[in-house]
Amino acid sequence: MPEHTAASRLRLSGLCFLLQILTIILFAVFVRYSPESSPGLCSQQLNCSWRNQDSGFQHPRFRDVHLQALLGFGLLMAFLGRYGPGSVAISILIVAFAIQWAVLIQGFLYFFLNGKIYVGAQSMVSADFCTAAVLVSSGALLGRVNPVQMLLLTLLGVTLFTLNEYILLSLMGVSDSGGSLTVHTFGAYFGLLVSRILHQPHRDKRKEQQDAGHQPDVFAVVGTIYLWIFWPSFTSATTARDNTEPWALLNAYFSLAASTLATFVLSPVLYEESTLRMVQIQDATLASVAMMGMAGEMLVTPFGALSAGFLAGLIPPLGFRFLTPVLRSRLKTQDTCGVHNIHGLPGILGALLGTLLAALATADAYGGRLELVFPLVAQGSRTASDQALCQLCALPVTLLLAALGGSLTGESSLRVGWDGGCEGILMDLGEKPGAAPKQTLPISWGGGAEPGSARRCANPPPGAGAGAPPGAGAGAPPGAGAPRSPAQRCR
Amino acid sequence: MPEHTAASRLRLSGLCFLLQILTIILFAVFVRYSPESSPGLCSQQLNCSWRNQDSGFQHPRFRDVHLQALLGFGLLMAFLGRYGPGSVAISILIVAFAIQWAVLIQGFLYFFLNGKIYVGAQSMVSADFCTAAVLVSSGALLGRVNPVQMLLLTLLGVTLFTLNEYILLSLMGVSDSGGSLTVHTFGAYFGLLVSRILHQPHRDKRKEQQDAGHQPDVFAVVGTIYLWIFWPSFTSATTARDNTEPWALLNAYFSLAASTLATFVLSPVLYEESTLRMVQIQDATLASVAMMGMAGEMLVTPFGALSAGFLAGLIPPLGFRFLTPVLRSRLKTQDTCGVHNIHGLPGILGALLGTLLAALATADAYGGRLELVFPLVAQGSRTASDQALCQLCALPVTLLLAALGGSLTGESSLRVGWDGGCEGILMDLGEKPGAAPKQTLPISWGGGAEPGSARRCANPPPGAGAGAPPGAGAGAPPGAGAPRSPAQRCR
Amino acid sequence: MPEHTAASRLRLSGLCFLLQILTIILFAVFVRYSPESSPGLCSQQLNCSWRNQDSGFQHPRFRDVHLQALLGFGLLMAFLGRYGPGSVAISILIVAFAIQWAVLIQGFLYFFLNGKIYVGAQSMVSADFCTAAVLVSSGALLGRVNPVQMLLLTLLGVTLFTLNEYILLSLMGVSDSGGSLTVHTFGAYFGLLVSRILHQPHRDKRKEQQDAGHQPDVFAVVGTIYLWIFWPSFTSATTARDNTEPWALLNAYFSLAASTLATFVLSPVLYEESTLRMVQIQDATLASVAMMGMAGEMLVTPFGALSAGFLAGLIPPLGFRFLTPVLRSRLKTQDTCGVHNIHGLPGILGALLGTLLAALATADAYGGRLELVFPLVAQGSRTASDQALCQLCALPVTLLLAALGGSLTGESSLRVGWDGGCEGILMDLGEKPGAAPKQTLPISWGGGAEPGSARRCANPPPGAGAGAPPGAGAGAPPGAGAPRSPAQRCR
Repeated sequence: MPEHTAASRLRLSGLCFLLQILTIILFAVFVRYSPESSPGLCSQQLNCSWRNQDSGFQHPRFRDVHLQALLGFGLLMAFLGRYGPGSVAISILIVAFAIQWAVLIQGFLYFFLNGKIYVGAQSMVSADFCTAAVLVSSGALLGRVNPVQMLLLTLLGVTLFTLNEYILLSLMGVSDSGGSLTVHTFGAYFGLLVSRILHQPHRDKRKEQQDAGHQPDVFAVVGTIYLWIFWPSFTSATTARDNTEPWALLNAYFSLAASTLATFVLSPVLYEESTLRMVQIQDATLASVAMMGMAGEMLVTPFGALSAGFLAGLIPPLGFRFLTPVLRSRLKTQDTCGVHNIHGLPGILGALLGTLLAALATADAYGGRLELVFPLVAQGSRTASDQALCQLCALPVTLLLAALGGSLTGESSLRVGWDGGCEGILMDLGEKPGAAPKQTLPISWGGGAEPGSARRCANPPPGAGAGAPPGAGAGAPPGAGAPRSPAQRCR
Repeated sequence: MPEHTAASRLRLSGLCFLLQILTIILFAVFVRYSPESSPGLCSQQLNCSWRNQDSGFQHPRFRDVHLQALLGFGLLMAFLGRYGPGSVAISILIVAFAIQWAVLIQGFLYFFLNGKIYVGAQSMVSADFCTAAVLVSSGALLGRVNPVQMLLLTLLGVTLFTLNEYILLSLMGVSDSGGSLTVHTFGAYFGLLVSRILHQPHRDKRKEQQDAGHQPDVFAVVGTIYLWIFWPSFTSATTARDNTEPWALLNAYFSLAASTLATFVLSPVLYEESTLRMVQIQDATLASVAMMGMAGEMLVTPFGALSAGFLAGLIPPLGFRFLTPVLRSRLKTQDTCGVHNIHGLPGILGALLGTLLAALATADAYGGRLELVFPLVAQGSRTASDQALCQLCALPVTLLLAALGGSLTGESSLRVGWDGGCEGILMDLGEKPGAAPKQTLPISWGGGAEPGSARRCANPPPGAGAGAPPGAGAGAPPGAGAPRSPAQRCR
Repeated sequence: MPEHTAASRLRLSGLCFLLQILTIILFAVFVRYSPESSPGLCSQQLNCSWRNQDSGFQHPRFRDVHLQALLGFGLLMAFLGRYGPGSVAISILIVAFAIQWAVLIQGFLYFFLNGKIYVGAQSMVSADFCTAAVLVSSGALLGRVNPVQMLLLTLLGVTLFTLNEYILLSLMGVSDSGGSLTVHTFGAYFGLLVSRILHQPHRDKRKEQQDAGHQPDVFAVVGTIYLWIFWPSFTSATTARDNTEPWALLNAYFSLAASTLATFVLSPVLYEESTLRMVQIQDATLASVAMMGMAGEMLVTPFGALSAGFLAGLIPPLGFRFLTPVLRSRLKTQDTCGVHNIHGLPGILGALLGTLLAALATADAYGGRLELVFPLVAQGSRTASDQALCQLCALPVTLLLAALGGSLTGESSLRVGWDGGCEGILMDLGEKPGAAPKQTLPISWGGGAEPGSARRCANPPPGAGAGAPPGAGAGAPPGAGAPRSPAQRCR
């Protein structure tokens, strides 16, 4: 066993080394700083097609807002409330590699000129969005894949995300500034398909039991507050120009407030336990983020934002209660963090809402903002209903690409994971069934060196199922037929 | 008992639903985005009286600074260091509803034109201030009211806060950009009066014992750092124009530093235990926030800010040591988080300091800033001493309104809380006396389903008093006559 | 013993009081707000030598970016990942006093005119940098000095830092906008020399055992995320003007990503345990911060930033594995937080990289930025190789000053610490060997009132060594010859 462990550790180390060296070489050959970064020399010679499509980022906004937003978004949104420190290490590995890779891949599509990629603030923003989608995907898989598989997922996910985004934004002229489709829907279904391919009945079942109940809500608190603080800025970082921003920002703010109230409306009805967990509020705020991604800059009334946010906040409780069991039992798809309820469904609804709003868009209601939100409509090359049709068609395109890409990635991951008798559950979150709560949550390198994780690869020990519930059941009565809370289900 | 629980859960759910639907309808009828949000159409037809009074917010500042500041301020300032995740869920519920309600109420007073409320960035800032005051109020009540009562408190508190703010800022022309009076003093005394009305001797006493010692200091650390990071921005978000900002910001910064040192001066003298808890530093920084609210933009020398901050930092240790016991035993007023020491007294002192500075204000010392800080004095319609008189009169007005409003709200809450044998202590923070520390701190829906909270409604069991101290006394010797630390007292 | 405790508590209280009163008096006599703060009256009469040297800060940037950055940097960078709440109280004491003292000391050197110091936004930024250096220094000493000694360290450290910075930036014309030399190298070696002087064999050894393994990784997670969020802004706050910022910011971002991957490359090879701790990622990101301090605004290609970040990320794992044991056993220098690996070595490498880049600087590659990064070269008063020579000479100057100053400070601290039988280990972090994990981590006032800390001053009890490991060894097998992880070693 030690040889096996050493081998998997060395494999991760070697892979990281190879990928980093490869990236450095590709950067050395292709990537230069854009002269746009120093205004004055600027952009007359760059065909800033992407820039025009997505209607221009400005440096001060990028500087102040976006780096904060993405990282708050990426790291905290997907994981912090779920798995704690162990998953953050994996998230940071994903972020660190995905940003470099996305700058390269997106650079070839958007910023390529005379054999060089010119990067600047806007290419970083674009890479950040891509990283967010990959983080959403990995939320469906967390705890059941090893870091090597995560790197493969990142490599393929970034590439496919960029392809999808290019088709939607550049070819079809879809408006999706907050990524309802490109980030949330694509990320969720991509991850779910990978999860479906990697499905392994008895292991997933046991894992699920082990995951219950050992996560301090502290992370959910911090994650929720970060969302409230950073998400409106995140939204405003991607909308068109200065004068459209305030509405997008206020829409974001109103929908956050309404989605929070929705949690307090639905959770007491759906769950019989007498407690509300912070993670449910976090889910609702995340759902409103996904829902308002496309519609955020299109809504022109505050009550629209309130209503949309309220609807979005209803989705996760209903989804965890009714959909997730079906997904798991019938469709054999594990969804560790519930990304289907939090990102997938709200993203789809957001796309439908965006379609509706695009169909209703008139120059009267939007005024000067029409050109910024729907440039093709404002220029007269498209009617509002054509634009709505495009927005609608973007949904099946995204779903198709996510499904195909996810299946492909899942199959590849299966092969990579096949390194002995323990393929699949190679990431050890360091919690043993029945063990006392530990203060550090380490992650493993991908091997099964410890007795605990070695055991995990064998059949489930009879004591595991009996050992875990006591910790989980301390807060709520372990009622036989009573529905469990989403917190228990998801963690 | 289960029926009772289900009833209170459904009551919270139904109330949230009703309030949200009501807000959506009112928004649909009355609220529109201000054309100011898209500069160009702008403000010629709006009577921006509030705007002129409080001298103008600008979008970029609002965007970058304020959303961060309010939420950091609101959520962390009042609670994070005190009750942990459980209280944050209640705080977020308050924030989510208070912002919507404040936009409506303040809209009718300030932004109403032709039957519509035009909201924009500045109305959100105003709503944020209002929310902060409600959060301060709830700090006095935390752990002794249920979520339904909290919603009622929010409903009435927002309305009365707006009334008080309107009288002070618009009618009396008082300068209070950081809310020494409007936010801190009003919020503290409003909450204390509600607490006085809800006083129930034996329950409060027992509750207090249970509260001791189970709060990880982690939250106090995070809260203090947030204050250091966000508060200076918070102050600068509300001061007049760009060229007055740096002084307000630097004043904030200097007073934070001095108040921290004051804690290290006083705590070792007042408390015999050998430890300093982070929560004491957090209290001192909060007190300097309250103290400098009014004076922040008026101080024209750095040493003034240092001195004021130092004085503010001395208040909480002295207050917890000498005033809180008197409040509790003589005046029968519980103050869960010590808002009297942290917000009330420093706010009053801040108002007196503001009065003094207004009396001393001369065109020489202020230069061009005079018009921004004291517009009426600069325009010649008032002398400096008249302005000082106004600032001074604002204090009794605020105290009177807070006292009347608090009594009214307390009486209403008593009726709402009367839902069986367990009115009053319906919010279960999930800690049972003598229980092992749990990792999640859930809050109850308002019912007493669990054995622990059911017991809590009866007479205090004899074991409760004996069971709690061991956890609390682990860090400090349970010396009989020795004064306890504020941390023990408050948590 | 109680008298002794009371004496040390009163001594800290009195010292804080004296220092604060002294500062207030000095501020009252000397410090005024700069008329620059209100643009219009501005700077014609101030000899803004420092301002010109360090090429101008602007208010908006300072406002939005810097206060956040410094505190995120200072508090979290040095300590949060290491010692938790207890150390943060000390950090905040250091920050609170260092900022006031630095404004005074730096004011006399840079902003002195007609007998007054004129402070403004840029003097606060400068004070922030100084505070960061002192925090780095205290990282080497944490857990082995009392608060009184920390205040002495701050007093002398601030003064010597300012002297060093003045020599480097103003006299030698060195470019070091991110403080590779002035902050990281100076801070690390200053702290290490103090640590060397304070070395006490048997106590340090025991302390080290006690420190192992009780730190939740939560702080490392938060610290790392803060770094990712705030550091690029921190870097950009100090670079020259708007048009050079994006490159510095993008360089920071790329180097963070590469240093993270470097951790995943090296840690699996160096450590046989199957887990990666977040603190290792935090170390790598900190090292890239120190490395890129000087070079951040000089690098003109993204792949340079990737390579430098990758190299920086390799230093801490190698240092903890091979250098720290040598430092401890041969050189008798304790380094609590490993500042030599995280700040010292990367800072030196950063200075060498800066020298190389200065030598290669041509007007072609830099364009208009040359004047901002190397103003003397752009003005023609120096050649690029002269500039490189200056950059190189700055390294021994900094090391010499740090060594001399550290020795002096250490000697003074020894005297201050001599207050009975327990000099040296007077700061009690509240953890007793073998005790159950407590929820609050108080710090002592400097005395040994509790039985636990009293015991700590005597010879190590035989049970201490045996009692601590069980908690530490839960995550990793206590293999005899196996190298321990840096987390264990450092905490």
